[in-house]
Amino acid sequence: MQTTFLEKYQKARKEKDSILCIGLDPGLREFRRGDVVPLKYERGDVEKGLLEFCLETIEETADYACAIKPNSQYLLFTLSIKELKKITRKARENGLISILDHKLSDIGSTNDAAFYWIKEAGFDALTYSPFAGNIQEATNASHKRELGLLVLTYMSNIEAGWIQKQSLYEWKPLYQKIAEEIRTYESDGAIMGATGHITMDDIRMVRQQIGAEPLILFPGVGRQGGSLKPPIQAGGDNILINIGRDVIYDKNPGQKAKEYQKQIKQEIKDYKNQLEKQRRTAK
Amino acid sequence: MQTTFLEKYQKARKEKDSILCIGLDPGLREFRRGDVVPLKYERGDVEKGLLEFCLETIEETADYACAIKPNSQYLLFTLSIKELKKITRKARENGLISILDHKLSDIGSTNDAAFYWIKEAGFDALTYSPFAGNIQEATNASHKRELGLLVLTYMSNIEAGWIQKQSLYEWKPLYQKIAEEIRTYESDGAIMGATGHITMDDIRMVRQQIGAEPLILFPGVGRQGGSLKPPIQAGGDNILINIGRDVIYDKNPGQKAKEYQKQIKQEIKDYKNQLEKQRRTAK
Repeated sequence: MQTTFLEKYQKARKEKDSILCIGLDPGLREFRRGDVVPLKYERGDVEKGLLEFCLETIEETADYACAIKPNSQYLLFTLSIKELKKITRKARENGLISILDHKLSDIGSTNDAAFYWIKEAGFDALTYSPFAGNIQEATNASHKRELGLLVLTYMSNIEAGWIQKQSLYEWKPLYQKIAEEIRTYESDGAIMGATGHITMDDIRMVRQQIGAEPLILFPGVGRQGGSLKPPIQAGGDNILINIGRDVIYDKNPGQKAKEYQKQIKQEIKDYKNQLEKQRRTAK
Repeated sequence: MQTTFLEKYQKARKEKDSILCIGLDPGLREFRRGDVVPLKYERGDVEKGLLEFCLETIEETADYACAIKPNSQYLLFTLSIKELKKITRKARENGLISILDHKLSDIGSTNDAAFYWIKEAGFDALTYSPFAGNIQEATNASHKRELGLLVLTYMSNIEAGWIQKQSLYEWKPLYQKIAEEIRTYESDGAIMGATGHITMDDIRMVRQQIGAEPLILFPGVGRQGGSLKPPIQAGGDNILINIGRDVIYDKNPGQKAKEYQKQIKQEIKDYKNQLEKQRRTAK
């Protein structure tokens, strides 16, 4: 029987003892390791430079993470299917799941063209924007191609609020309705920012709506200024914490990933101790 | 002074006497001319096959259209910046504007990476999904890179209704609020389906909100079953009518594009006559 995306996530997470996801977002202007701009890029060979940067980042961080999340806007104009396959293969060989941060947002026939190519490239899942309203159709079509689908629910940028929280569908904030659809149509999870405009209550609401099993992927920690506490204290067990620029541009990405892994584990431990204490006091 | 996207549109439209846009959406399963599967694809060289298919379609239809709209989900996994440049150059040489149907939907820094690459590839504009709420930021950033921004407003697929029309922001349907933002932040236009669930009133409302000058791009005519009447009778002057599969898979795409151009001109003429008649009767 086929392993589902959520089973792959559980396996990787257990093996790595980590819920850290590495965001591969190499922007051309920032593209560096500490103070060093990779040679290949300096010489103008952007394609090779970007590919090597991604492969190197995967190798160095793989011991401390359980997933990678390359973003299409940074990579897809220079890398094509052949190079994407190298990235997903490197991830798989290192025990990581790979999620294409694609924010797909099209009509059914066009979405399916994307699913075809994303599967060809070897990804385990993709991110999906529900603006076109077709969560059910997209979930079914992606599952047919053995891809997990993670749905944008309440995004990390501050401008997301007016449409995702303040807009109402049947008197409910849109993000709540999206969370309901994730559960109803059995998508693989939600995406929520770990940034300041999203409250612990927002996160608890989404976890309650989607149920215990689906994933919540949290971008926004690190350069975007988000905090580890909300995802860990309100997100439930099955979460992924994404760190992008703060790890990939460090002069030692492996060391940086290790620090984040440690920090996350400490936060989880502290929170469990705190809960235990509250339980005892309540008796 | 730099020519704006809307000026480029006016020029192309005038020169071609056409508001037809050719949707370059070559799906692998359907990929053919009439009954003939292009040779290069049969031999398994998908990249060359797709590129030649696009270049050929542009050449054959250029006399009858004023724009091309290649969709990222069909092309971006196999073609990269070098091939995209060939497509936009071919369009420019043939007097066509080129719009990347990208439905971009990310946070600011990531959107700007996409703008960078889309400009590099030679496109004049792109399509944008407003789900992240950052219409102002995206409009400013795309204009800085001399790209036009067309915003999804009410989409051609039937499932779009619950989120784009039935969801309310301050008691207004979401698509109306999006149209207001397009005007306020001076984006280059809206995208609305020419399909059955979108009424003439919906289209009139959007045209009224965005003002007379910005573009409305209408996909949905042809294989998706949409009709020419609503865009022409309710969309105002500055519109683009997109036809994709119905032209590109025809055994004679040029002939098919010519027929559509003629049909569109006839519809406009009929509508103007009808208006004139009503004016006379009213006197």
